[in-house]
Amino acid sequence: MSPEVTHFRDLLGEVFDLQAAAAVLSWDQNTYMPPGGAEARAFQLSTLSRLAHERFTGEAFGEALEAAEQATAGSPPESDEFCLAKRTRREYDKRRRVPAEWVAEHARLTALAHQAWQDARKRSDFASFKPHLARIVALKQEYAGFFAPYDHMYDPLLDDYEPGMKTVEVETVFRSLRPVQVELVRAIAESGRQVDDSVLHQEYAEEKQLQFGAEVIKDFGFDFERGRQDKSPHPFTTGFGIGDVRITTRFQLRFFNDCFFSTLHEAGHAMYAQGVSPTLDRTPLIDGASLGIHESQSRMWENIVGRSLPFWRHYYGRLQAIFPAQLGNVPLEQFHRAVNKVHPTLIRTEADETTYNLHVMLRFELELALILGELAVDDLPGIWNEKMREYLGITPPDDAQGVLQDIHWSGGMIGYFSTYALGNLIACQLWEKIRQDIPGVEAQIERGSFAALLGWLRETIHRHGAKFEPMVLLKRAVGSGLDAAPYIRYLHDKYGAIYAL
Amino acid sequence: MSPEVTHFRDLLGEVFDLQAAAAVLSWDQNTYMPPGGAEARAFQLSTLSRLAHERFTGEAFGEALEAAEQATAGSPPESDEFCLAKRTRREYDKRRRVPAEWVAEHARLTALAHQAWQDARKRSDFASFKPHLARIVALKQEYAGFFAPYDHMYDPLLDDYEPGMKTVEVETVFRSLRPVQVELVRAIAESGRQVDDSVLHQEYAEEKQLQFGAEVIKDFGFDFERGRQDKSPHPFTTGFGIGDVRITTRFQLRFFNDCFFSTLHEAGHAMYAQGVSPTLDRTPLIDGASLGIHESQSRMWENIVGRSLPFWRHYYGRLQAIFPAQLGNVPLEQFHRAVNKVHPTLIRTEADETTYNLHVMLRFELELALILGELAVDDLPGIWNEKMREYLGITPPDDAQGVLQDIHWSGGMIGYFSTYALGNLIACQLWEKIRQDIPGVEAQIERGSFAALLGWLRETIHRHGAKFEPMVLLKRAVGSGLDAAPYIRYLHDKYGAIYAL
Repeated sequence: MSPEVTHFRDLLGEVFDLQAAAAVLSWDQNTYMPPGGAEARAFQLSTLSRLAHERFTGEAFGEALEAAEQATAGSPPESDEFCLAKRTRREYDKRRRVPAEWVAEHARLTALAHQAWQDARKRSDFASFKPHLARIVALKQEYAGFFAPYDHMYDPLLDDYEPGMKTVEVETVFRSLRPVQVELVRAIAESGRQVDDSVLHQEYAEEKQLQFGAEVIKDFGFDFERGRQDKSPHPFTTGFGIGDVRITTRFQLRFFNDCFFSTLHEAGHAMYAQGVSPTLDRTPLIDGASLGIHESQSRMWENIVGRSLPFWRHYYGRLQAIFPAQLGNVPLEQFHRAVNKVHPTLIRTEADETTYNLHVMLRFELELALILGELAVDDLPGIWNEKMREYLGITPPDDAQGVLQDIHWSGGMIGYFSTYALGNLIACQLWEKIRQDIPGVEAQIERGSFAALLGWLRETIHRHGAKFEPMVLLKRAVGSGLDAAPYIRYLHDKYGAIYAL
Repeated sequence: MSPEVTHFRDLLGEVFDLQAAAAVLSWDQNTYMPPGGAEARAFQLSTLSRLAHERFTGEAFGEALEAAEQATAGSPPESDEFCLAKRTRREYDKRRRVPAEWVAEHARLTALAHQAWQDARKRSDFASFKPHLARIVALKQEYAGFFAPYDHMYDPLLDDYEPGMKTVEVETVFRSLRPVQVELVRAIAESGRQVDDSVLHQEYAEEKQLQFGAEVIKDFGFDFERGRQDKSPHPFTTGFGIGDVRITTRFQLRFFNDCFFSTLHEAGHAMYAQGVSPTLDRTPLIDGASLGIHESQSRMWENIVGRSLPFWRHYYGRLQAIFPAQLGNVPLEQFHRAVNKVHPTLIRTEADETTYNLHVMLRFELELALILGELAVDDLPGIWNEKMREYLGITPPDDAQGVLQDIHWSGGMIGYFSTYALGNLIACQLWEKIRQDIPGVEAQIERGSFAALLGWLRETIHRHGAKFEPMVLLKRAVGSGLDAAPYIRYLHDKYGAIYAL
């Protein structure tokens, strides 16, 4: 490594250390911190982020980046050092365009808005959250302005979560997908076939739920020597380098799905993070390529693998042995149908596979309209409920179960939602390729063998970290860009069988 | 608050945040971190300490300190802001005398030495640790040189742990104490009275041990809303502000004392930290006055309270109810004698109250001789064993159970040991005063009421944080300086009764 690259990596490493330290503090805040620690923790996190930002955007860093770019200009375009300089330049230029005052104002407003949102949701009182949201939308419009000219005003927001992705690409895919999904939900509702999932709502002891989930993800390949699992109010994955990637889960005594499938989901994220090439550790390339690519991993393990019949053929006996009173007399097929029950829900995070993307599209469409100024914050709840009726056939009884349900907007995360749906699509694109590349993959799953599958993901996706833009990575993996067709085929195959369509 | 003081506190707060973040990371490292996280954690901790050091010793900080000193020059000498400027100046001047190269070299050497010590202790091989220790001693001599002129070359080392304390003061007290303690140990050995502690070596279930300890420290006044307890290989207390003070414990299935008394010990440290005035939060004054003062708190709750007969008159029934098979037929007095059994041990951390200080004095004397160049590292094991025979009448069978047992020297912590003994003495000085100020304190303990005791400690010691030097604080509390007489009286009273001397 040239001295320029070494120096550049040292400075990056320092920023990485500060961010990793902040991530440890956030993990602790969500798992073990006593209530009295909240105020001091806010100070600590704010100081760490500010220092990381200062160092990343400072003159010294800019000079080191330039020197590294010159030193690596002749390196192969797929080499670590070339990609590192390129990705860092992209991030550096983006951050430098945003004035420090905007960053401070955004932090201030979202801190207030988060509190207001929590209160508003509790009382189902959209009016009290409205002025906060209006200010955040205005701030986001201003943010987009820093990146003018753009093809679409929403592009700079989307780009924060899905680097290189354009609004028009998402719109095109969603436009083709929406009617198909709406039609599938309608067909299922009219099929007359009822799935009884009452077996999932018996009493499942916490310790045993956690133990079974841990067994399964260990089989998947989650490395407990380089990670751990704890409980938190909302499941999440966080990492402090490839040697320490942690997941959390939560638990409901009388609903089996919550703990188990969120464990598989987070393990999907975590195995991605554990699979990045060690040569990228302590650099920004340690992250996944994008939120959408990340979500493709978690949704694959959660749904395509974990909700499949082959999977349960292998694990159902074990689960019955752990919960004999609850499941001893329940046939495998009945259990499999239960964990795949379709029913339109008000709440996105509780949505099944057939309806999930509709929740996302609704939010994406509203975000676009808000940012473009075509929709006033005042009119948001009405449009929300109208779209819920149109897409899912149900009407939220109040705003707490409607427009106020998600945390994202109060935190300034506009541009985020579509990545959930992209993840679902990408998972199915990868899955079709995997079935070609590993012909017996379902049979392997039925034997509880995940090594070939994880190996494929490691080789094709994980090891590259954030070296490539998400659509470049996808093209390398499957030979084409974003495509909803595999997802539609997957849904029709799976739910056609379950609901005898 | 003047703008100068506000600015000064902001800069101090930033350093505090970095140190608190590092403390969270260390806590995590000792409790939950998976093995794979070690390498990244070392980077994170090193970056945080370096940034904290840079910011604390930088020009900008020096100017802010000077401005704050001018702004607070007329403040009452016991006011928070005056003490804050004074204490910070003391620390700032100390740190500025030490060249950055020395700090880096110290960090490098002790990292290597720590590893070498671990290996050497495992193999009981002093020879392999010797060159490391020799380098550390030389480095510490160099460190002392930065503070010349001094009364005693050991003063600057001692001062790092016990601000303002002089070597000659410790020597004087220890010189008077040692023969008395040696004589007491001899008298007990020759008393012919045997204490049978086999009841403590039955099987005590982990969950119940932890639960009982937590019950007791909650009664003491440890605030679980502003703290928590976890397990770690070595018990410790750490805090990230007064709202989040954590303790750890460890557990032995077949030895009751280990978990329980270390829980009381750490709770003593933690209640000190939880009791500091909120006005001192996010400043260096949040720490205790010194290690010795801190240890006085932990030893008081562990020994003077927790190993007393009144304490067990209250709690023994509860403990019997939790462990009926183990203790149901064991009389209170027998149990009380068992937890106070005296027997000379090779290992300091396992020493009882009558022998503990002898272990400390031995180390203090050897440290002095090493620093003054009167003792060669080569001769250390021989002298160690000689002193063990002289003070305790036992000979270490190997160096692992002798000179290699403690972590301190490998970490460069020369000057530390005496604070353990000082804590024991100070605890008894405070205790005599407490018995005057709260006449019924033993009767209160017998009722399980600790409010008056904790209130006295809060008012007299805790709330002041590090505002005063330890001996100033002690003088305020008991009207005199360091004095071994109360400790000697305490030992003679207590062990005279138990061993019928």
